[in-house]
Amino acid sequence: MRNLTLLTDLYELTMGQGYFKEGKHEQPAVFDVFFRPNRLITYSVAAGMEQAAEYLKNLHFDESDIAYLRSLGIFTEDFLAYLKDMRFTGDVYAVREGEIVFPYEPILTVKAPMIQAQLVETALLTIINHQTLIASKASKICAAAQGDLVMEFGLRRAQGADAGVYGARAAVIGGCGSTSNVYAGKLFGVPVSGTMAHSWVMNFPSELDAFRAYAESFPDGCLLLVDTYDTLRSGVPNAIRVFQELRASGHEPKGIRLDSGDLAYLSKEARKMLDRAGFEKAIICASGDLDEYLIRSLKEQGAKIDSWGVGTKLITSADLPALGGVYKLAAVYDGEGNEIPKIKLSNTTEKITNPSFKEVYRIYDRATDKAIADYITRFDEEIDESKPLLLFHPVDTWKRMTVTNFRARKLRSLLIKGGERTYDTLPLSTIQAYCAEEKGRFWEEYTRQDMPHIYKVDLSPALYELKRSMVEKYGKGE
Amino acid sequence: MRNLTLLTDLYELTMGQGYFKEGKHEQPAVFDVFFRPNRLITYSVAAGMEQAAEYLKNLHFDESDIAYLRSLGIFTEDFLAYLKDMRFTGDVYAVREGEIVFPYEPILTVKAPMIQAQLVETALLTIINHQTLIASKASKICAAAQGDLVMEFGLRRAQGADAGVYGARAAVIGGCGSTSNVYAGKLFGVPVSGTMAHSWVMNFPSELDAFRAYAESFPDGCLLLVDTYDTLRSGVPNAIRVFQELRASGHEPKGIRLDSGDLAYLSKEARKMLDRAGFEKAIICASGDLDEYLIRSLKEQGAKIDSWGVGTKLITSADLPALGGVYKLAAVYDGEGNEIPKIKLSNTTEKITNPSFKEVYRIYDRATDKAIADYITRFDEEIDESKPLLLFHPVDTWKRMTVTNFRARKLRSLLIKGGERTYDTLPLSTIQAYCAEEKGRFWEEYTRQDMPHIYKVDLSPALYELKRSMVEKYGKGE
Repeated sequence: MRNLTLLTDLYELTMGQGYFKEGKHEQPAVFDVFFRPNRLITYSVAAGMEQAAEYLKNLHFDESDIAYLRSLGIFTEDFLAYLKDMRFTGDVYAVREGEIVFPYEPILTVKAPMIQAQLVETALLTIINHQTLIASKASKICAAAQGDLVMEFGLRRAQGADAGVYGARAAVIGGCGSTSNVYAGKLFGVPVSGTMAHSWVMNFPSELDAFRAYAESFPDGCLLLVDTYDTLRSGVPNAIRVFQELRASGHEPKGIRLDSGDLAYLSKEARKMLDRAGFEKAIICASGDLDEYLIRSLKEQGAKIDSWGVGTKLITSADLPALGGVYKLAAVYDGEGNEIPKIKLSNTTEKITNPSFKEVYRIYDRATDKAIADYITRFDEEIDESKPLLLFHPVDTWKRMTVTNFRARKLRSLLIKGGERTYDTLPLSTIQAYCAEEKGRFWEEYTRQDMPHIYKVDLSPALYELKRSMVEKYGKGE
Repeated sequence: MRNLTLLTDLYELTMGQGYFKEGKHEQPAVFDVFFRPNRLITYSVAAGMEQAAEYLKNLHFDESDIAYLRSLGIFTEDFLAYLKDMRFTGDVYAVREGEIVFPYEPILTVKAPMIQAQLVETALLTIINHQTLIASKASKICAAAQGDLVMEFGLRRAQGADAGVYGARAAVIGGCGSTSNVYAGKLFGVPVSGTMAHSWVMNFPSELDAFRAYAESFPDGCLLLVDTYDTLRSGVPNAIRVFQELRASGHEPKGIRLDSGDLAYLSKEARKMLDRAGFEKAIICASGDLDEYLIRSLKEQGAKIDSWGVGTKLITSADLPALGGVYKLAAVYDGEGNEIPKIKLSNTTEKITNPSFKEVYRIYDRATDKAIADYITRFDEEIDESKPLLLFHPVDTWKRMTVTNFRARKLRSLLIKGGERTYDTLPLSTIQAYCAEEKGRFWEEYTRQDMPHIYKVDLSPALYELKRSMVEKYGKGE
């Protein structure tokens, strides 16, 4: 684990020195991480909490960090001495990785001395924005693939090594079955996949020689790239010839990969050729600029593609390369431990923050086990499942609806308590399964890509009233 | 330096084992890194060669890497034993960081035993694609800012820690004057900047209290964020009051920052208020969803903005989040050291690769010292500056033009020779200055954003003839 303590914006440190000088640095504060709505986001898949927890656990300025800060000439020695001994001692509430989440709800809340809570803003956002972005994109792509295997192939186009490695991790959480990224495979125990590039084929006197040489090295699970020269006239026939030789020596081939050209047409023709030759079980894997839109289009065209290698557009979330998660002050506490809620006003109504230390519930209909709405409360509110709950109607926001026969689940739990992690690292397969299971508890109307119903994230009456009164009190200038 | 040896696609390793089994693994091979054209790219700024060199120098599989590969069950023990002792022993030719580069030209060429050259494909592409992308975006943004200070502010929206850190590095190469990223500041000696967030202001009883407290901590270089409540009715007047107090105590304020709202209107009004109060030298810094388009628009509207904090859209290159650089086999050598050129054919003419080990020259007009064209040759060709050179006409590609009174500069030099670096790490300021200087050697017609002239990258007659003959020979199937 690298020491990422300096992975922060300078202003977190200048403010830190300011709080230190004012004697406010150890005042307890509450900050929320949440996303704002975006036209391309129907739902998000939370990810990155594991790395966020590791980062917080390891937070410390080492000697060289302090020396660097000193060299900037803006920090005082007493402040630097304070930083040297500082560790993260706060509490962190967070949703599970793989959780389906929506705009405005605090998916991670930091409750810590002000100076710590402020310092960790940037890195927490970097980690959670990134992994949640890629997990969400993967979830959309896997939905388009309708249960087919989706393989993450994007490392070479990732925005640096971490983007490739943690992007692969997030892609698996969102539903990808494997990655080409060996480093991610090692770190996270993710299945890795990949066979050959065009350079392999170009490096033999003929395509047939190249295929034979590969089959000799990997007689089992042999998957051949058939588009180096001419897919249907050369690639597929040569592959079939080598598959016949493999079968004669007692091995079954895995299939072929198409990486260019008209994937709909080529896959249909290749399927016929493979079937006619008796290789009905050989799969056709496709890659090349794929994303959820193209996969959906290929499916509509009846493409005979069994598995999908998705690269650039997944690993960069190309149509939305940043999620825009924010980290906003929600409360501080006075010397007696009384909460002083905080609000950030804005001319744009959606940008007004939700004040106070909060809790988030997911409300399920007991009859169908489907999610109805999320419900944000002040932290100490209790929900009584035996009593009807008043919620915004999911379609007509001006109407309220009364929900009975529901269960309420707290969406977040303690990730870190007093600076210590509260649970061990989960296997990625567990997180992936959880994501799939929980997504199954949403009506497709909420998670579909085009014109989805807007899933409601409601405020409790008590929280709504607090917010209204604070807007009234502080918003007079606007 | 982390060991990134496993930062590769699995197929590089399966092919490696295939070459090993075939006895081809130590055959010398030449691979080129180059970009394909893209509607959003007029020119690119090369970056990442420093990290590419470090990666290659450190290339080695450690015990745990070998153990992991063994656990996959697809690699043979003799191959794993070979990997264990393998180091990078090849040569790498590359353009300087900060060099202005264009599609199709090999900006980095690896000449190494096949197994090494193949293995390093993925990580080299990851590193160079990413940094070149961000350096190029920064160059466009800085061009729009017309010499104003541009500050890189994007860490929290970066695709992971590396994207933030190396993205900041690349942004500085492309022209940014500072970064908010403290870690990048420490690693690369880049100026860091930043003062306060809205949370600081919200954390005091009033905006005025917050400003005073900050000014007390940082009496010199005091820059105040004025848009937390109401920019013109509260933020700027409160800032001016604190600036007057600062001046009374012998300090000059730095200025204000606007982070929301109508930046054109607000900056003009704030400028008037500051000027009327006698703070003509106080700067106005703006941030909030900026990119080259918005900066240009604000300039056109006469916004009174002195420096620009650019975040998400720079650090992710939001309108083009991947550069699509590729790594293609250009040649192998037989046992006698004779070159066997390689070509990748395609139905798409632009995707046909340029065969052979190559050299790239930039041709300058001696009278103006401006670049005329880039010229790709076979590696051993010599250019005689005393003789006229025949080039494609820069505008009418069907015409050839004869160039005299020119100088030809080799665009690449040895970055690594026999596995060893040939030069030391350069200061980032040197690289940034080089980039600016070399960009000055291009007519603006080539580097402007809208409808630029297409800068020509020409092939020498010898290389053109080789390519033509290979297309004829191998392309018969198409």
